[in-house]
Amino acid sequence: MASSVREKIVNAALDRFHVLGFNACSVQNIVEQAGVPKGSFYNYFKSKELLALEVLGIYAQGVRTEMLADASIAPMDRLRGQFAFMAASYKGYGYGTGCLFETLATEASDQTPLIRNAVAQLFDHWTGLAATAIRDGQAAGDIHGHIDPERTARFLINSWQGAVVRMKVTNDNGPLEDFFAVGLAPLQRGT
Amino acid sequence: MASSVREKIVNAALDRFHVLGFNACSVQNIVEQAGVPKGSFYNYFKSKELLALEVLGIYAQGVRTEMLADASIAPMDRLRGQFAFMAASYKGYGYGTGCLFETLATEASDQTPLIRNAVAQLFDHWTGLAATAIRDGQAAGDIHGHIDPERTARFLINSWQGAVVRMKVTNDNGPLEDFFAVGLAPLQRGT
Repeated sequence: MASSVREKIVNAALDRFHVLGFNACSVQNIVEQAGVPKGSFYNYFKSKELLALEVLGIYAQGVRTEMLADASIAPMDRLRGQFAFMAASYKGYGYGTGCLFETLATEASDQTPLIRNAVAQLFDHWTGLAATAIRDGQAAGDIHGHIDPERTARFLINSWQGAVVRMKVTNDNGPLEDFFAVGLAPLQRGT
Repeated sequence: MASSVREKIVNAALDRFHVLGFNACSVQNIVEQAGVPKGSFYNYFKSKELLALEVLGIYAQGVRTEMLADASIAPMDRLRGQFAFMAASYKGYGYGTGCLFETLATEASDQTPLIRNAVAQLFDHWTGLAATAIRDGQAAGDIHGHIDPERTARFLINSWQGAVVRMKVTNDNGPLEDFFAVGLAPLQRGT
């Protein structure tokens, strides 16, 4: 079935982009992993970049950023919980594999404007949700009032990406633990 | 002259690895940029990975991490100064080009153990120097005493790499400014 070939390509791309990166992953790598004829690729995708956009969207839905705006959870628990959820997914892939956001962001360039825009929007959306959690925490008296919610949210999300960079080198979760201890914990009042 | 061909290859590799990344940069890309015959490459380098190691060492010497241990400069000024020096170099390359440390770190994998080890050692060395600056600042009463020097140094350096990831997407220095304001400034007592 046509839909099944398409699905195989998307699933294979999710894996291959994650492991190899966007630039080093060829259409050939993807169709081999998918077990479909190379000729079928362009029946479904006009370019590797458009496939990466779709894969990025699927990955983004899996990292539960919406948890950051869940008013039924205490704001600091939302922040910790969402990053911890991502940490658990990295553990599943193997720490050395990293995060697809980071991989695509770091390869973003003038040559891949669609990916650069998509990653920028995902980071901005994620930042907005984290800023909401910080503002809610300030309103509840749980998070220090002197903190700039937007700027701090950007910094935390960037710092998380940096922890992922170091994680790919150390191949363990030490950099993520440093993030929780030094980056996140100080937001909380009374700590 | 033989030495001149070698130098051309190293300089071309510094540029091409920086712009294209390690995986996407072929030996062909390097010899084209260097303007030397492809056959000459393997007279000087046994592999692309060994060339990357040499390039990484050259880049590392250029980022002035030794400034962090310079006792003639106030510790917070060392920390700010060294990151500001890196920021200035990114501006020179174009913010979208990023940082060679980050590029090689994020592509580090089981397939390139020499690069992974070299990047790990560079990060550890840099972390050690930043921790020294933090300890000196604590001894001088300029930096909050409750901060864990090693862990905070690791976090700051990782966060800087993350700011670089975001910088490659935004193509401006906003993420670096967020780092200075949210990551670095709070170390200083009386701020």
